[in-house]
Amino acid sequence: MTDAADLTARLIRCPSVTPEDGGALVMLGDLLADAGFEVHRVDRNGTPNLFARWGARGARTFGFNGHTDVVPPGDLGSWTHPPFSGHVQDGVIWGRGATDMKSGVAAFVAAAIDFVRETPPDRAVILTITGDEEGPSRDGTIAILDWMRDNGERMDACIVGEPSNPEIMGEMMKIGRRGAATFTITAKGVQGHAAYPHKARNPLHALTTYLNDLIAAPLDAGTDHFDPTGLQITSIDCGNPASNVIPETARAVVNIRFNDLHTGASVQADLTARANRVAQATGVTLSIEAQISGEAFLTQPGPFVDLVRGVVTQETNRQPVLSTTGGTSDARFIKDHCPVVEFGLVGAYMHQVDERVPVAQVHQLKTIYQRILEKYFE
Amino acid sequence: MTDAADLTARLIRCPSVTPEDGGALVMLGDLLADAGFEVHRVDRNGTPNLFARWGARGARTFGFNGHTDVVPPGDLGSWTHPPFSGHVQDGVIWGRGATDMKSGVAAFVAAAIDFVRETPPDRAVILTITGDEEGPSRDGTIAILDWMRDNGERMDACIVGEPSNPEIMGEMMKIGRRGAATFTITAKGVQGHAAYPHKARNPLHALTTYLNDLIAAPLDAGTDHFDPTGLQITSIDCGNPASNVIPETARAVVNIRFNDLHTGASVQADLTARANRVAQATGVTLSIEAQISGEAFLTQPGPFVDLVRGVVTQETNRQPVLSTTGGTSDARFIKDHCPVVEFGLVGAYMHQVDERVPVAQVHQLKTIYQRILEKYFE
Ligand SMILES: [Zn+2]
Ligand SMILES: [Zn+2]
Repeated sequence: MTDAADLTARLIRCPSVTPEDGGALVMLGDLLADAGFEVHRVDRNGTPNLFARWGARGARTFGFNGHTDVVPPGDLGSWTHPPFSGHVQDGVIWGRGATDMKSGVAAFVAAAIDFVRETPPDRAVILTITGDEEGPSRDGTIAILDWMRDNGERMDACIVGEPSNPEIMGEMMKIGRRGAATFTITAKGVQGHAAYPHKARNPLHALTTYLNDLIAAPLDAGTDHFDPTGLQITSIDCGNPASNVIPETARAVVNIRFNDLHTGASVQADLTARANRVAQATGVTLSIEAQISGEAFLTQPGPFVDLVRGVVTQETNRQPVLSTTGGTSDARFIKDHCPVVEFGLVGAYMHQVDERVPVAQVHQLKTIYQRILEKYFE
Repeated sequence: MTDAADLTARLIRCPSVTPEDGGALVMLGDLLADAGFEVHRVDRNGTPNLFARWGARGARTFGFNGHTDVVPPGDLGSWTHPPFSGHVQDGVIWGRGATDMKSGVAAFVAAAIDFVRETPPDRAVILTITGDEEGPSRDGTIAILDWMRDNGERMDACIVGEPSNPEIMGEMMKIGRRGAATFTITAKGVQGHAAYPHKARNPLHALTTYLNDLIAAPLDAGTDHFDPTGLQITSIDCGNPASNVIPETARAVVNIRFNDLHTGASVQADLTARANRVAQATGVTLSIEAQISGEAFLTQPGPFVDLVRGVVTQETNRQPVLSTTGGTSDARFIKDHCPVVEFGLVGAYMHQVDERVPVAQVHQLKTIYQRILEKYFE
């Protein structure tokens, strides 16, 4: 029996703040190789990544995905126990990554090792673990998937082990995610004196009109499985030190979480059309730069979703809600490869000071992953 | 005969960027003392100021006001002639302050010196010249007026020699000014992740709603002698580097030029009431800090205004418009002391690179000031 809680604590002791591995993937690679997995490091541009397969290539294959990198610990003095101590006390493991998501990785690694010990090799299990999910994610899971495509490796279904439950184990699993995009809007007008506005064109007035239109008129009202598309202005900046001068330029950043009525490109087209209308009315140029982090996607409810939901219900006595809420995750890459759902621990402490996880929860998650593997290959 | 053009060039050679005197008031003090004026330096908190009177205290007194400080020259390499050279070529004087307003000061100093040479001492002329009109103006003309009050000095009417004509000599004089105030609005909400906006309160959304309301609903439609109250957003700043984080605070600066329907306090009350409505609707705190630079005022058309208008019409063959447009000037302080109007040169080049003035225009302005003195004491 592989102890998932002990493995969680050992992973926490690897200081793997993105993009550092801190020894985390090295440790997991050794552990999996010892257990009979075929292990490949598929690092790209300095990002550490791990691919591991047990069983024959081309066999029916179940996959797991996760990350060992963590966000920075912030103010060290605020932690009850040092963030990379993996301190265990009164049934709780403390440290950065305790919930997001060294515990999730430990749970599926331990579940997979124990599962393959007694299973015929015409069943395959693939583990994909990256060291960059919290960072730019350009050479993380997507690099592993690229390598898999080039090397004829394939999962038939995949679980991402990110924390998926807001407060109680079993209450929520994720079957899709909203898309995410960031738009930087630069307004360029004509500088002038505040007392002579007819000689100037105020970029801040055009920008205010534009942004007010965006927040006042929502893009949609939500769909069957998705919340309404959400829009948040996250910065407006001008940096004009002279209170009596109309500035030449100003800039706003808008973060949009869009549902399956849209694509990143259609949202961009909508924002651009609105910008053109304001530009025409004001004479201020509004240029838009888009950064699309992920498209909206949905794993349609069906046998795979039912299987996961059934196991979770059995093990937690709770029927999980099929949700598409929250931020992005690497499921946005995997959805192009195979059906993917997300189920993991309670995410309440993620990214916070004193991040921690109950030992019992890690054991419970390992059990859920083992039952899923068993049911999948039944 | 005192040569106003020559005096303009000599004043330009004094590098008197606020708050430096650069020798400007020293030179004028000596010149006026030599001409028989009683001269006092009334510096306050390091700001150089000059008071000069000719004639008996308590006599009927005509006053002039102006400033010798200038705004910085900006990029020196962009100037055709060095900004403090006072270079004269083809009938044009070049340099910082050539229009705003060393020429205006030179014109009224020259006019006053020549006028008092042949006038009985029961007529008095007072000149008030400051070295801080372009800066904070806290210890400039207002310090001279404070000193005058404390020392029993008084003007019965005053001309401020600021450039008052947009393009052609004689087209405009100013009989009042809109008030000016700057409001800094700080919005404080609750920080959070852009994917979970229900856990946050976005200060930028509250601020955008607030500002859009301000620019969409004008404060008034103008009055007999005044344009509508104008409002310009001159900065919005947040400084949030994380495009997926809803920030806690944001700040906007609004510059308002208000007419005689308002006071600084009534505008502040209006803005605060609107802020309270947005705060109530959004849960974001909007606090407002006001800086009132000047109240709106009007020198009612009457004998003094008619006198100035008559002389300008005679000397330029143009009947000047009675305007209240433009930025603030030190007339906003003098209006509490005596009736005040503004008439000076063409302001087209003020605060720009290659600021310059035709020699003939300076001579013409001196003649206008002399005729005004003569008519006033007739
Ligand atoms: Zn994570
Ligand atoms: Zn001026």
